[in-house]
Amino acid sequence: MLNNRPRILITNDDGVTAKGINFLVETLRTVGDIVVVAPDGPRSGQSSAITSNVPLRLNRVKTEEGLDIYKTNGTPVDCVKLALHQIFSDRNPDIIVSGINHGSNAAISIVYSGTMGAALEGCIMGIPSVGFSLCTFDHDADFSATDSYIRSIVADVINRGLDNGVCLNVNFPAVNEYKGVKLCRQARGHWTQEYRKDVDPFGQDYYWLQGFFQNLEPDAEDTDEWALKEGYVSVVPCKVDMTCHESISKFVHLQK
Amino acid sequence: MLNNRPRILITNDDGVTAKGINFLVETLRTVGDIVVVAPDGPRSGQSSAITSNVPLRLNRVKTEEGLDIYKTNGTPVDCVKLALHQIFSDRNPDIIVSGINHGSNAAISIVYSGTMGAALEGCIMGIPSVGFSLCTFDHDADFSATDSYIRSIVADVINRGLDNGVCLNVNFPAVNEYKGVKLCRQARGHWTQEYRKDVDPFGQDYYWLQGFFQNLEPDAEDTDEWALKEGYVSVVPCKVDMTCHESISKFVHLQK
Repeated sequence: MLNNRPRILITNDDGVTAKGINFLVETLRTVGDIVVVAPDGPRSGQSSAITSNVPLRLNRVKTEEGLDIYKTNGTPVDCVKLALHQIFSDRNPDIIVSGINHGSNAAISIVYSGTMGAALEGCIMGIPSVGFSLCTFDHDADFSATDSYIRSIVADVINRGLDNGVCLNVNFPAVNEYKGVKLCRQARGHWTQEYRKDVDPFGQDYYWLQGFFQNLEPDAEDTDEWALKEGYVSVVPCKVDMTCHESISKFVHLQK
Repeated sequence: MLNNRPRILITNDDGVTAKGINFLVETLRTVGDIVVVAPDGPRSGQSSAITSNVPLRLNRVKTEEGLDIYKTNGTPVDCVKLALHQIFSDRNPDIIVSGINHGSNAAISIVYSGTMGAALEGCIMGIPSVGFSLCTFDHDADFSATDSYIRSIVADVINRGLDNGVCLNVNFPAVNEYKGVKLCRQARGHWTQEYRKDVDPFGQDYYWLQGFFQNLEPDAEDTDEWALKEGYVSVVPCKVDMTCHESISKFVHLQK
């Protein structure tokens, strides 16, 4: 009997027990057969980091009809690499879905995000990939409003595919009802006031990451930050080619 | 007495004792006053990862005329953030230079590279930033041929600046003499055969990262991989805006 259901790889950066990934699994069980490969604990802010200095483990923690769950000691990108190498070695998944992240990955946060690191890795490997994030760090956040949006975006991506080298960064505002979906570009900005300096019990200084996002274009209505502030779901198509093609000609004086 | 010498922040991902960063420091001492903030050990493959689950330390290990060296327990991006927050809180450095990395950061390696993570972080903060890499993993590599190229590129970037949101990814081929400098785009490709599977002394499977870069366009003469193969120094202007602007209009059907 041939199983024609889509094969979906799910991962995240908050770890296999996080509420966000478990909500995502339940949401997508009606859409296809699911394999979860997720970190064994939190890996927020891991970007596209890979683990080369220690060996990785891959342990199955659950298996039932249409659902297999594995955990690893690696990063989100390691999860995708291990899954493709070890579990999907016969045929790639039809889609890679990362999230639902507890916290925004809009604007420049895509650069630091493990959730989006995993989506970019899928994209590098030529597999349609989407990252989902909800703009609250609450561990017990209410994800219920995201359900129909996720199913419709995932179904669309499975049906139409994505252009080579392009993946989607989807963020949900922390409101109970969304105004709709807006296609956006990444807002320009950066983090500021990034450390709390203090002294440990032994009299040594330490610095703990904190910080506030500074949006450099708060009035630009085509950005993800604007859409989220207005209550829309933001969708930013992202690409893995980081070349600034339009700048190449500006550096010909360096060429020799 | 006003000191008008350029202020240069140097970091890397191979750690503060690596030969590459120490060569870079010696090369740039004639160009300006140098502050090094580098990881206390290897952080290869750390991409743009940031540390939020443990406090960071910042310890000065050397100070002499025109040179201060600090080490931290953080990632390359943490090094840049800590340096800007704690050491350059009065005025930003004129340039951030990352490297010289032991190993190529051409093509898709920019995504995983801690060296380029640090350069991108500088770029996000609006500071002209350049990453340098030599295409050999040899810990005792000979960096001498890079000297005049690095001084000329760094001087040019200090003098002209870089466009907002753009930094440079510079790779040196592993040859004794370079044919010249080529402005390039990032070659398309990905890593393959990425794990060595084995069994530990306790009978448990483990997976250790390895892999080979597969260049998907080996004949494209405008790519960094081609330039390096031909013996040129490759320079790729990279941008932190990951939006695929040309794709936004393709997803209007998702908008509602």
